[in-house]
Amino acid sequence: MPRSDLAVTNPLAARIRHVIDTKTKPLGALGRIETLAEQIALLQGTDAPRMTQCTLTIFAADHGIAATGVSAFPQEVTPQMVMNFLAGGAAANVFAAVNGVALQVVDAGVAGERIEHPQLIDRRIAAGTANFLDGPAMSSEQAQQALDHGAGVAHAATGEALAFGEMGIANTATAAALAHKLTGRPLAGLVGRGTGLDDAGLDRKLDILTRAAARTGALSPEQAMAEYGGFEIVMMAGAMIETARENRVVIVDGFIASVAALLATKLQPETRRALVFAHRSHESGHRVVLEELEADPLLSLDMRLGEGTGALLAWPLLKAAAAMMTDMASFETAGVSSAG
Amino acid sequence: MPRSDLAVTNPLAARIRHVIDTKTKPLGALGRIETLAEQIALLQGTDAPRMTQCTLTIFAADHGIAATGVSAFPQEVTPQMVMNFLAGGAAANVFAAVNGVALQVVDAGVAGERIEHPQLIDRRIAAGTANFLDGPAMSSEQAQQALDHGAGVAHAATGEALAFGEMGIANTATAAALAHKLTGRPLAGLVGRGTGLDDAGLDRKLDILTRAAARTGALSPEQAMAEYGGFEIVMMAGAMIETARENRVVIVDGFIASVAALLATKLQPETRRALVFAHRSHESGHRVVLEELEADPLLSLDMRLGEGTGALLAWPLLKAAAAMMTDMASFETAGVSSAG
Repeated sequence: MPRSDLAVTNPLAARIRHVIDTKTKPLGALGRIETLAEQIALLQGTDAPRMTQCTLTIFAADHGIAATGVSAFPQEVTPQMVMNFLAGGAAANVFAAVNGVALQVVDAGVAGERIEHPQLIDRRIAAGTANFLDGPAMSSEQAQQALDHGAGVAHAATGEALAFGEMGIANTATAAALAHKLTGRPLAGLVGRGTGLDDAGLDRKLDILTRAAARTGALSPEQAMAEYGGFEIVMMAGAMIETARENRVVIVDGFIASVAALLATKLQPETRRALVFAHRSHESGHRVVLEELEADPLLSLDMRLGEGTGALLAWPLLKAAAAMMTDMASFETAGVSSAG
Repeated sequence: MPRSDLAVTNPLAARIRHVIDTKTKPLGALGRIETLAEQIALLQGTDAPRMTQCTLTIFAADHGIAATGVSAFPQEVTPQMVMNFLAGGAAANVFAAVNGVALQVVDAGVAGERIEHPQLIDRRIAAGTANFLDGPAMSSEQAQQALDHGAGVAHAATGEALAFGEMGIANTATAAALAHKLTGRPLAGLVGRGTGLDDAGLDRKLDILTRAAARTGALSPEQAMAEYGGFEIVMMAGAMIETARENRVVIVDGFIASVAALLATKLQPETRRALVFAHRSHESGHRVVLEELEADPLLSLDMRLGEGTGALLAWPLLKAAAAMMTDMASFETAGVSSAG
């Protein structure tokens, strides 16, 4: 519903709009920062919202479908990148440090040996999903466990906004298959180059996913997440549902995180109002998923890394939006004349 | 020149590209953050650039053309907003505080009495420009003085990047006229609603500027800035030229600042390499000016406030870009396998 309509029917929305419109600036001159402030204020139920702390949680997991060669990188990169996050060397660490965001890493189901590290949050469902070309990626019990773990991790995380990122070799393949089953949109529009497939690799990925999708017919969201999900994706969806339930903002990263957001809204539509879409990923399927979510991300920087890197770059915009409402002078308090 | 070509002919550019490409991420996966890092590193002449401090300088001035009614706001708003900046209540103050940017305000030529305030930097050329509908906005001596003052203010400002903002009732009219004379592009594409003109006001503004432009023929940049410039715009151009000369980044804000950047590049083409375009303003003429500068801004948030607000929101992206180069691990140092 357009915000002017909302303001007519909801007294809080009207008060929030009034606060924004009487700040010392031409009407509407802060554009999307104003819309963002409105969303944050409505979610927090106040015309003086706070946006001071954010935590990024990176969920890592492996994917049985990787065995079919759908990624440019080998599966061993998943645990290697987990160690890189824990050592502070990844892009997500750097962007988190620059923007004052706390960062934590969850093992949602990385393949191979369990990683022993005091800072790693162990919510390991299994050593990677099964290959969904041949059968379900996980059992429905595992899917429910992943949702629950995600909710628990989100509940324990600090901040008025929570960002969620992911790491998992082959997870653009999983995300494309899951989004296809959740929306019925053609796979061709959802499959992209991931970490850097060439044309032949892209054709092969589409072919494999087409065969995998043909294994099943129409599915409920619950069935789709078990058949074609990934542990990190389902766990992120559980985390998003819980974050929204607590009236905290979910900062949605790129393609994979948006598919998790899509799953979350299918399972719990109320989640939508808490979602702030950080950036438009260069991964081609993101456009389709954003259309389904009727989302228009804040940033468009041709990024396609995941890890929550896009969400981290959007965090300062959320801080600015909330501070605009609480710290900026009104025409009256500043003694500034308004438009004649 | 495309960056790959540059890397072939310039050993520093090649080294910078190598550093970026061996970081723990798929090739090119950080998109425009990588391009930004490249620009910053080349400007600083190092593959380990620093981006830790930024100062925003807001130049305020009045415009004789305001007497023709081309703005929705009365001229008294210019000094009122100067007081608002000094009291910390404007959007620019709030965004600067959120992003850790220092802010200073320059009186470049505000109409009326001289404003007495210990924090205000007095570089006042006159109490506003003359009305350029009838004759030159300023003398060539005044224009040169404005350039010199701008350079001096920039030289004294702290930071690896300097942002410049403006405040001046009717300065979208001035900027449109100046851009028209600098580029020959039609006025209709350069004139916009400014702080909020309605359709009739917009028609009237275009009519007045068309008459004003007809007063002169083809002009050199030096002539154009005196005939149709504003003190804050010319001072900003001087500041940008100096900042670039010192190999520091200029963060270019919206429409007015981009016209100052256009003037700066016409006067001193070497300035271009230091310019980082922060955001695409909602003010309609910005598109044309950006085309002339071959610029593609980082952000697109439908903002049209000026004051440097867009530049302030882009600053965290510059910090992230530089930190990516210095703080992020490489595949080798992190022990991560690269693409197979």
